[in-house]
Amino acid sequence: MSKHSIYPLTLDGNSVDKKRLEIKEYFHNTYDLFEKVFELLKDDEVFYQKSEITRHPMIFYFGHTATFFINKLINMKIIDKRINSDFESIFAVGVDEMSWDDVESSHYAWPTVDDVREYRHSVKQRVDELIMSLPLTLPIAQDSDMWIILMGIEHERIHIETSLVLHRQMPLEFIKEVDEFNLCVESSTAPKNEMITIISGEVKLGKERSHNLYGWDNEYGVFNESVEEFKVSKYLVSNSEYMEFVLSGGYENRDYWDDEGRKFLDITKVKYPHFWIKDGEVYKYRTISSVIDMPLSFPVDVNALEAEAFCRYKSQKEGVKYLLPSESEYRVIYEQSGEGEISNSENANLNLSYYSSCPIDKYNFNGIYDVVGNVWQWSRTPIRGFDGFEVHEAYDDFSTPTFDDKHSLILGSSWASSGNLIMKYSRYAFRKHFYQHAGFRYVISQTKDKKVQDIYESDELVSQYCEFQYGETHFGVNNFAIETAKIASKYALNHSKALDLGCATGRATYELAKNFNEVEGVDFSVRFVQVGSKLKESGKVLFHSVEEGSLIKNKRVTLQDLGYENLVDKVSFWQGDACNLKANFNSYDLVMATNLIDRLYNPMLFLETVDEKLNDEGILVITSPYTWQESSTKKEFWLGGYCDESGEEIKTIDSLKNILSDKFELIHLQNLEFVIKESARKYQHTISEVSVWKKR
Amino acid sequence: MSKHSIYPLTLDGNSVDKKRLEIKEYFHNTYDLFEKVFELLKDDEVFYQKSEITRHPMIFYFGHTATFFINKLINMKIIDKRINSDFESIFAVGVDEMSWDDVESSHYAWPTVDDVREYRHSVKQRVDELIMSLPLTLPIAQDSDMWIILMGIEHERIHIETSLVLHRQMPLEFIKEVDEFNLCVESSTAPKNEMITIISGEVKLGKERSHNLYGWDNEYGVFNESVEEFKVSKYLVSNSEYMEFVLSGGYENRDYWDDEGRKFLDITKVKYPHFWIKDGEVYKYRTISSVIDMPLSFPVDVNALEAEAFCRYKSQKEGVKYLLPSESEYRVIYEQSGEGEISNSENANLNLSYYSSCPIDKYNFNGIYDVVGNVWQWSRTPIRGFDGFEVHEAYDDFSTPTFDDKHSLILGSSWASSGNLIMKYSRYAFRKHFYQHAGFRYVISQTKDKKVQDIYESDELVSQYCEFQYGETHFGVNNFAIETAKIASKYALNHSKALDLGCATGRATYELAKNFNEVEGVDFSVRFVQVGSKLKESGKVLFHSVEEGSLIKNKRVTLQDLGYENLVDKVSFWQGDACNLKANFNSYDLVMATNLIDRLYNPMLFLETVDEKLNDEGILVITSPYTWQESSTKKEFWLGGYCDESGEEIKTIDSLKNILSDKFELIHLQNLEFVIKESARKYQHTISEVSVWKKR
Repeated sequence: MSKHSIYPLTLDGNSVDKKRLEIKEYFHNTYDLFEKVFELLKDDEVFYQKSEITRHPMIFYFGHTATFFINKLINMKIIDKRINSDFESIFAVGVDEMSWDDVESSHYAWPTVDDVREYRHSVKQRVDELIMSLPLTLPIAQDSDMWIILMGIEHERIHIETSLVLHRQMPLEFIKEVDEFNLCVESSTAPKNEMITIISGEVKLGKERSHNLYGWDNEYGVFNESVEEFKVSKYLVSNSEYMEFVLSGGYENRDYWDDEGRKFLDITKVKYPHFWIKDGEVYKYRTISSVIDMPLSFPVDVNALEAEAFCRYKSQKEGVKYLLPSESEYRVIYEQSGEGEISNSENANLNLSYYSSCPIDKYNFNGIYDVVGNVWQWSRTPIRGFDGFEVHEAYDDFSTPTFDDKHSLILGSSWASSGNLIMKYSRYAFRKHFYQHAGFRYVISQTKDKKVQDIYESDELVSQYCEFQYGETHFGVNNFAIETAKIASKYALNHSKALDLGCATGRATYELAKNFNEVEGVDFSVRFVQVGSKLKESGKVLFHSVEEGSLIKNKRVTLQDLGYENLVDKVSFWQGDACNLKANFNSYDLVMATNLIDRLYNPMLFLETVDEKLNDEGILVITSPYTWQESSTKKEFWLGGYCDESGEEIKTIDSLKNILSDKFELIHLQNLEFVIKESARKYQHTISEVSVWKKR
Repeated sequence: MSKHSIYPLTLDGNSVDKKRLEIKEYFHNTYDLFEKVFELLKDDEVFYQKSEITRHPMIFYFGHTATFFINKLINMKIIDKRINSDFESIFAVGVDEMSWDDVESSHYAWPTVDDVREYRHSVKQRVDELIMSLPLTLPIAQDSDMWIILMGIEHERIHIETSLVLHRQMPLEFIKEVDEFNLCVESSTAPKNEMITIISGEVKLGKERSHNLYGWDNEYGVFNESVEEFKVSKYLVSNSEYMEFVLSGGYENRDYWDDEGRKFLDITKVKYPHFWIKDGEVYKYRTISSVIDMPLSFPVDVNALEAEAFCRYKSQKEGVKYLLPSESEYRVIYEQSGEGEISNSENANLNLSYYSSCPIDKYNFNGIYDVVGNVWQWSRTPIRGFDGFEVHEAYDDFSTPTFDDKHSLILGSSWASSGNLIMKYSRYAFRKHFYQHAGFRYVISQTKDKKVQDIYESDELVSQYCEFQYGETHFGVNNFAIETAKIASKYALNHSKALDLGCATGRATYELAKNFNEVEGVDFSVRFVQVGSKLKESGKVLFHSVEEGSLIKNKRVTLQDLGYENLVDKVSFWQGDACNLKANFNSYDLVMATNLIDRLYNPMLFLETVDEKLNDEGILVITSPYTWQESSTKKEFWLGGYCDESGEEIKTIDSLKNILSDKFELIHLQNLEFVIKESARKYQHTISEVSVWKKR
């Protein structure tokens, strides 16, 4: 493979055959680059090390980007057959800065690196076949099967970048040099920073659905803003400029830090940037695979809390208010720089032309340096969806879990960025304490940012479910989560540990905790799981209920309102796939599968293995209205609601009896109504069937 | 303009700009050809003549194809502004073989031909602008705005063909010669027909959504069939061959005719084909604009009843069973002929290369003559949708009203066919008594066709509404149609004539007829209107109710069950647009608009004019759950359910009061629930608001 990273392809074109070849080339380049990055790990033992305590061991990431292809293709019903269902379960969830992912690696017996290498090879072959055979029309639209392939590729591009961060965080003895990974060896004294005036402008931040480059969900939609004249630093903040702050006691003076920053200082005890190494009284500098003398003209790598602290320090010192740029201000700079839609590594330090930062005065964009490339630039803007934001069905938790005002946008890309990451419209955001190859520049701006209010759930479907689980009752029908938890608790013989599978926004998980010592809430969608998790962490659920048209009523429910203050330690929330549940979900006295089986891509996979999850005398509760639909479940996997070959009508309850009777005894059967509010005048009124099964 | 008809364009291509020019050229060719066809009418007076008592006068068709563009573009919310709302109302419905269309021209003061010419010119300019400016990506998909333009063009192509039939049916003194319309002057004695063996084959009748030629809804989907070996006549049946049947008393011997055929004979008293003229003892032949000596070698033009009678005659005479070909048998012939996807006028008599039939032995397709072209060929197959059939949103009544086992497919196209009509996958069907430029060929086939059963509604949404209006009640909520009719009847002060607007499947129309002398049921969708109409004509409603998944329960409700035997003469059903209602809908004591206003593309157009429809003391009843959605109504036209510029919440009921209070007094307001069954376990449960308004 070449170390050269090729540029992303366009979605349009004249020849389908040519496009397939382009996709294949881009896929191979991505896949090979990713594997090359893992050659930095000294030996196979190192794959089981973590770069940070809160992260997975590296073997996880090595498997993860390959399983992503297969899991998404399965979920979108583009393919039917898994390659390795164990791998596709344990390597499934990667966004591991989030609390609902299970990062306790002791749960797993990780496979050997060679087995994962072999697996990666099988995935590569399968994806190759699909690239050449999937239906394809140009331009490639978001509902195209091929979009899922592109999604897998761009997902892997993200992990190329983040893996390079993780490797740079690894103890040096675990890392070896890789020949092709060249550092920028130019270094000098840093130029003195200065402020450049940027004239006012109108910005259009969102891109259109017909745009001819791949985009993640958060890039689409409409957001226009007028930006007043402001000033911006000509250069990124260099190690040299930041050194003043460190040497003047910036990390000790708590006035420079906000609450989140102080918490960060207290927990980490840091006194200087993460990739600086203190050697006696001298600061050295960690690259991916070496420690070198401090390159004073390179940009400093810091997290957002450190960047903000620097701004407060500089403001205090000079009596002028310095801020991080907003997303809109940055776009004005971008537009005035003359930069195109995809940045080129001949004019900027990106797309892996170097494997390190370079001096801040190397790349000039009409007077401002490093508008793109070198290191990401923290903004002061928390990521939100634009007007018209829609999640992509195949990856519905790519963005929405970050729309919480705690994730700040990073701007402009770094030397390790490629693919979608170097596109004008791309938008990535991280928690403020998180490290990336990221630094900052500052602005003097009069713009008044809107005060952050409580964040009410903006996801329509999630809000509808919050209303269903935490809102009012209608037509005299009782709260379904409470009722199902009551029935399940009544029939359960032992009450140690319960699984609320398909927990949605988590109400029944809490209700079960009234009777069980420990309850795990699991849902396929992180969008939903985060509600129960937020209730636990912040003590409240904030959502809205649709009244008429686009008129809504904001609602707030607290742990106190619910009487759950003493239950929070008993519940936990996890993302998981009921058709391929991780091995560490086990030893339950109760598994409750609520309105789940008719939404699974292959319900048989769940039913055939659920007994293994249960203790002796364990109870399985299934509730469902049996509303099978081809958009969720291919007809060949329906359990009922069709005629078999002989013309006989197959009902779901009869199939459940056939499938489960070997391992379970049916001990109770009843109807239970529920009502979901769509607006003040429109409701879904459903009659679920509750079946209670005792493990034989 | 050239008389030459150009071939249809493909939906794909490399250049959007080039495609726009292709569409424009094809549009102009179509529009000009259509107008050329109307030059056959001797003078403007003739535009007000009908070719048949059951049809509109010709002025209707002349305006209709132009209004079609504007009405569809308005309904699809592609444009906002009408060109002439009167014209776009009176020229709106063209499928006038159907009982629910209003063909009583006395209702209208038809405009002058010059005014319609001027209107057509304005439409042409507007469509030209749209062709050059609408968003366009290639291939053009069914949800593209440009598809609606193509739909308008292909709709006009159909009317070029059917107008030529109507003109041929006009008294000769109303028709003048048009220079460019040349007849085929070749004629000779007809060759003796003979049977050719066709080997068995597998056919795939439906086409894929990605197909690169425009298609109507009924062409898409999947239908595969094995066809056994069969024999087919080498030639179409000529005037000469059919003459034997006529001369041997075929029209007198009722054994050759089935029930429908006998009814046809009794009503029409015909004794020979429609375009034959009896001159003493000699039969002559009507072309479009002349009467000529019988061209014995031309195919006979007959309807399906006559073609079937001929087959029975020939079967009896020879002791071998002759049938019309089935759709699948015809496809085998087609595949074996080597014919492509679009037929070419160099090899077949089609695309208006002649303006008449030609000898049946002129065009040879691998041994079978006239596989396509010359005249359409009646089949024995009633039109149905293929598996996966979906109506196109913009024209939801193009096909479904013909899925009744009473509309037979015509195969292969005629000399007057062009555009979609000459494509391999196109499918057109007519009632068996209907005349087209159509004849027939016959087969000897062992295939057993499925016995025709009662036709249960196959349209999911229509069936769901039948269950809603004629099915069971749920959750203790009364039948909504009955309840609204009761409320409306109670508040109405006079009971002569009522309008049930948004009548759907018609239940409330009948219920109102218990208290009113005359009730008109009007709905935008013919798919719905036909249910009430069928109940009136056939005495029953046949539908299904979804139980679980794809399992359904067939249901049958009769006039007797409903107690409506004595109401049928009081009700009538019509297609109509509440935003642009025809002038002849007037003089009502009650207008009841049921769950309608939040589904109109511009509800204000209805509310501002509804008072004109009412008599003094007239009552307006509006029921709605105010579930505004952008798919039905652009947000700028919502009456409520949004915040105005000052941030104030606008509720629909308040807007209704503002809009109506000048002309109406609000005399009653209440909630009324309704429940729509989606499956045995899933329901929509809605609370409609009923407001009763008295005309001031």
